[in-house]
Formats: sequence, structure tokens, C-alpha cells
Amino acid sequence: MERSYFDWNATAPLRPQAAAALAHAVGFPGNPSSVHAEGRAARRLVERAREEVAALVGAEPANVIFTSGGTEANMLALSPSIETANEKRPRERLLLSAIEHSSVRSGGRFPRSMVEDIPAKSDGRVDLAALSEAVRQASLPLVSLMLANNETGVVQPVAEAAAITHAAGGLLHVDAVQGPGRVPCDIGALGADLMTISAHKLGGPKGVGALVRRSDDIHFPDPLIRGGGQERGLRAGTENVAAIVAFGAAADAAREQGPAEAQRMRTLRDMLEASLKSITPQVVIFGEAAERLPNTTLFAAPGMKAETAVIAFDLEGIAVSSGAACSSGKVQPSHVLAAMGVSPALTRGAVRVSLGWSTTEADIERFLGAWRKLATALSKGHSIAA
Amino acid sequence: MERSYFDWNATAPLRPQAAAALAHAVGFPGNPSSVHAEGRAARRLVERAREEVAALVGAEPANVIFTSGGTEANMLALSPSIETANEKRPRERLLLSAIEHSSVRSGGRFPRSMVEDIPAKSDGRVDLAALSEAVRQASLPLVSLMLANNETGVVQPVAEAAAITHAAGGLLHVDAVQGPGRVPCDIGALGADLMTISAHKLGGPKGVGALVRRSDDIHFPDPLIRGGGQERGLRAGTENVAAIVAFGAAADAAREQGPAEAQRMRTLRDMLEASLKSITPQVVIFGEAAERLPNTTLFAAPGMKAETAVIAFDLEGIAVSSGAACSSGKVQPSHVLAAMGVSPALTRGAVRVSLGWSTTEADIERFLGAWRKLATALSKGHSIAA
Repeated sequence: MERSYFDWNATAPLRPQAAAALAHAVGFPGNPSSVHAEGRAARRLVERAREEVAALVGAEPANVIFTSGGTEANMLALSPSIETANEKRPRERLLLSAIEHSSVRSGGRFPRSMVEDIPAKSDGRVDLAALSEAVRQASLPLVSLMLANNETGVVQPVAEAAAITHAAGGLLHVDAVQGPGRVPCDIGALGADLMTISAHKLGGPKGVGALVRRSDDIHFPDPLIRGGGQERGLRAGTENVAAIVAFGAAADAAREQGPAEAQRMRTLRDMLEASLKSITPQVVIFGEAAERLPNTTLFAAPGMKAETAVIAFDLEGIAVSSGAACSSGKVQPSHVLAAMGVSPALTRGAVRVSLGWSTTEADIERFLGAWRKLATALSKGHSIAA
Repeated sequence: MERSYFDWNATAPLRPQAAAALAHAVGFPGNPSSVHAEGRAARRLVERAREEVAALVGAEPANVIFTSGGTEANMLALSPSIETANEKRPRERLLLSAIEHSSVRSGGRFPRSMVEDIPAKSDGRVDLAALSEAVRQASLPLVSLMLANNETGVVQPVAEAAAITHAAGGLLHVDAVQGPGRVPCDIGALGADLMTISAHKLGGPKGVGALVRRSDDIHFPDPLIRGGGQERGLRAGTENVAAIVAFGAAADAAREQGPAEAQRMRTLRDMLEASLKSITPQVVIFGEAAERLPNTTLFAAPGMKAETAVIAFDLEGIAVSSGAACSSGKVQPSHVLAAMGVSPALTRGAVRVSLGWSTTEADIERFLGAWRKLATALSKGHSIAA
């Protein structure tokens, strides 16, 4: 059976440019720390990729630290040890929006007692008034706010949050893993001090990501993984050369093709949502009132149970998800929808459809065909919750 | 120019089985945490690889935690938080052999004040009498001793160290990254409680490794990277599926072909050393009195400066190294040779030659040809240190 993959927010298929770069780079045997020709060749590959990743977010290559992925970059970023050119004392407070990814919600290296929640509003955006109040009351805060939510796709008011945070002497970390190729991610324009990106969310391989800083006035936090002097002493361990090279190629493709891809995805996604509403008028699309990623729809219909719907879609050849992939093993309601004040009953039915650059109209049609079958079952009073 | 790669201890070229597995696995788009068919397929790939990696070291698959590499596995392992079925208190002391890799020497998550050195002897092995004394005086110690040294290749008395450590109520972590495919690595036979392995040292890709425990009586340490529930909550972040799959394939190949490969490498290495001595009778081969890895020669000749020799070899098409790759950027004398009591003058000339399964007699001949040229320069009184 032909299948349609609608789970790009969990992980994106490898872009052809990244696959080619990966295949090329695995043939290089060297360790970038070695001084011989093989080592120097590996070093050049890594530094070229650093330039490509930096260009994706408008940063200097020297301000990019490669990690094993977004989660590690978040864990590295959220540390009291971040100093700036003007402020050498440790950060005293970590302010997290209530809708952050679990790798941010974990609080990184801050003790739990130093972590504070910033609520979200019902439209899926962080509550800027609450942020404003919290940063004013906190001494030397670090704020972490995602660029766009992985479940709802709601784009967060990052530039506004940056202005509020900076006015109070705070620093802003932005988990931007869902952004590249979908919405603008210029670190300077966003006003982020530190930014996390992940290769596999933008068409690169799994197992590699980066923590980026806006300028060298912001000092990177103490290393999380210590040992050799790689990544200028900030992240020990032999560089993941081939994956880094493929990350660079994917970043390049996302930077060049992202705007056109975003336009295409938006058209398809809007078509999907219009049909969804026409088939099932009582459907709720979460975060619809806010600006969202052009590729994401999180919806529910009364009476629907998400786990059952995901399985029913899967049997029809359609890969969708209920909430974030990393927690979909556990059956627990979305903390994102809870923060938005969505009722537990509706939350339990939330299904995420996320598109990518290779999604076609035929994929949308297949999704809608499957939905018509499920919706019919629902309308007949059969709960598809079984 | 055809080149000969003699830096397998820094990083090994990808085995063909691993390259094929990687190429196959990157085609799978799924996130192993997703419940749809694509996610389940990725999950199956990861769990199959876990079995292959477990088999390499004689462990149960459930006792293997994948990490981003050996350095992260060491950082994860060296934590006071390791409990056992019988002992729920935190470890109070970390005992490190003086010849460990920098990622172990960093002390992991132990405060510096809790870390103690165990000296090495002049033959390159850890001093077991000193270890014995130290574990007796320490309360709840964690000992970290490598299986074989990356610079000298000297195989450490791990089983003896395990017996000594266990008799004192201690636990033993073994950084075994240089072992697989070269010497036996059965975690039970070695008596290691925790063991680190790295894919790229045994012919898998860079960017993946594992921390393995001998039995579930030993509890894994607190996670270093928190967020999603991956690796049973012990290591958050989307699994590096393709690299893990390639790691599994490389582990499989190393397990099956390792004994024959080790035999072949030993023959070639012994031939290399015999010729080296015949060309330059005053050459010193470090650790020669102890059992060594079959693929490693660390040598020096009086008057030789390692950095210059590495460059001279490189110009002749030969990749060798001066010490460990991760520190070869910094010009600092080997802590391993210092711990063995080697004079600084001789230490500065130490060049490491490390072979692999694809090393041929022609490679050895090319090396010896280059050495004859260098040795002639040396014997004429020209220091090749230049």
C-alpha cells in the first residue's frame, strides 16, 4: 500500500541533498582532530557545514556549536553558567513557557527550585504580560521560549519576548527546531541570545543539532559533555562528521527552498483544513486564531480518541500522530493543550497532521478519504475510541 | 598519491557492512517513538541493533543504552548516582587510572574533590597494588579503568581490577572503546559493571556509542540528557536510528571477524616493529613489556619530534598520529607516557601507528619506506624536529 507521511514535526525524511552529502562524507575516514591529510579533510568538511548551518539562522560560523541533537542543545543551553560580556554572574532564574518541548521543560541544568513557568494563552501563544511580570521580578533570568510549538504549530511572539527579556537584563534561549524551512529563523531578527536547531527536523539526519549564539558577547554555557577539546572545549567527543556534513547540506536546502516550500505547504494545509471542516463541521483546530507554522494542523472532533484515530489512519496508509513523538509512547494528555485551557475530553482526541516539502495533493486526498471513513463512523454514533 | 591510513585508534573507516546498513536505514523516515508503521519500523531497526551491540560484549540487549558516542557514555557513567540492587547510597569516590582518556579524566559528574588518581607502572599498566590500597580506603568507590590504552595499546588488568574493586564494595566502569575487534570484550568475563563502547572505533559511524551494564542489579546513573522518555528515560533525544543500525552492523562484523582480524593485524604489526628495530636499533616501543592490542605501536627514536614526524609521514602518504586525536590539536605531552615515567624528551617524539582490518602488507612496506627516509635524516644528525 502506498503511504502518506504526515508526521514531519516528529522527524522529517532526509532531503536528497542531505542523503547525497551523507553518502559522500562517510567515505572520509579521518578524525577532524588529527593533523594528517585525512584529519584535515574531515575538519574542512565540518567547518564548511558550520558555515551552512550558520547561514540558515544568520549567525557567524564561530557561534555555532554542534551537538548530538536538539535535546542535547537544549540541555546545554539551559545552564546558570551563561555569562555575557557585561554580566559575569550566573543566571539566577529559568523562566519556561508552559508549552515548551519536554527537553526544555526538564529545566536543563537548573535546580528545580530556580525554574518558573510562564503560562500560555488560549490561542496557543505564551502570555507576554505574565512574562513581563516574571522577568521584572527575577534577578538575572534566562527565558526559554520556542519559535513554534511542535504540537499546535503556533508561532510564538519571540521578538516581543526578546525585547521584554532584554529590557529586564535577561537572556533569551529559543528552541527553534520546528522553524527552519517553514518560518524565518534569523537569530538577530528574532533577538534570541541562544538558539537550538535540530538537523532531522529540517531534512538532515538524526543525531545532530546545534546550539547557536547571536554574538560572542554571549558566552556559551559550561560544557555538558567534557573530555577532548572539540567544539572549542564546549562539547567533547569526536565530531559526527558525516551527519554534520548532511546537516549542512540540509540547512542549505532549507535556506534556499524554504520560502517556496512554506508557500506550497500552506496551500495544501489550508486545503486540508477547509475540507476537514466541511466534512466534519464540529472539528476543532487548535491554535487557529494565532499565526501557525504553514505545515501543521492539530485537530480534534468530539467523541474521537486520538490513539485509536492514529491507528485507524495508519491502517489506511497514513502516518499522523497524537502529540509529540517523544511522549507518544506514554499515554498522557498534552501539556500544551492543557496550558491552552483545552478540556481534557477534547485533548484526548487531538491528532496532529504535519506536512513537508514533498507532501503532494494526492497525500492530502488520501488523508481526506481516510478521514471521511472515520468521520462517518463518528457521525453514526460509533465512537472510534472503540 | 596512494595513502596508507595508520590512525585506526583515532577513528576507523566505516566497515562495508556498516556503510550498507547506514545507506539502508537512512531511507526509513520514522521516529522510533511514533506509533504508526514508519515509527514501528524505525523502532524495530533500533532494537535489532541493540541486540547486535549487546552480543558484541555478551550483555543483554535491555542493558545497552545508546549515546552519541564514547565520550558521552563516559560522562554518563561517571556519576555518583549509580546504585545497585544492594546499595542505594550514592558513590562517594571516583578512582581513575592515570592513563585514562581525557573524557574519563574529566571526572564526569563527580566534583573534583571526590576524584582520586591511581598511578600506572612503567610497563603501561595500572598499578593494582595502589588500586587495592585506594579502594580499601574509599567508601563506596567507583573505579574507572580502560580496557586498553588508546596511545600505547597496553591491555589493562581489568578482571583483576574488578575482583579487587568488588571485594571492597566498589563498582567498576570500563572504557572499552579500543577493544572490540581486537581483544575479547565480554562484560561478564571482564567483571565490568558498566562498559563504554564507541561505534566509530570499531568500524561503525561517528556519533554513536553505548553504555552497557553487566546486569540489572546495577542501576544506570541518572540521565545526563533529559527530556523525552527515550532509552527508558536514561537518555533523551530522538534516537540516531541510521547510525545505531550501522553500529549494530559494525558490531556484528567485529564480533564475527574480530578474532581473525586481530590475528592478521598482530602479524603485520609485529613485522612492522621488527623492521622498525632493525632500521633504527635505538627505537623505543612503549608498553612493549605488557600485553598490548594487536594493532598498536607507539614508538620514539631519540632526537625525533613527533609533530614533525607526523607531518613528514603525511607527506609520504602515511597517516599516523602523535598521541590521542582529541588532544593532538593542543601541543602538550602525553599524560599516558608521563604516568609511565617516560622522560619528557622521549615523550615528545612518540608517534602512534595503529592498524585496522584492511591494513595490508603493502601499507606496512610504505610505512617502512618512509621511516627509512626519516631515520636516515636522523642518523645524519639532522634532527627531523627542524
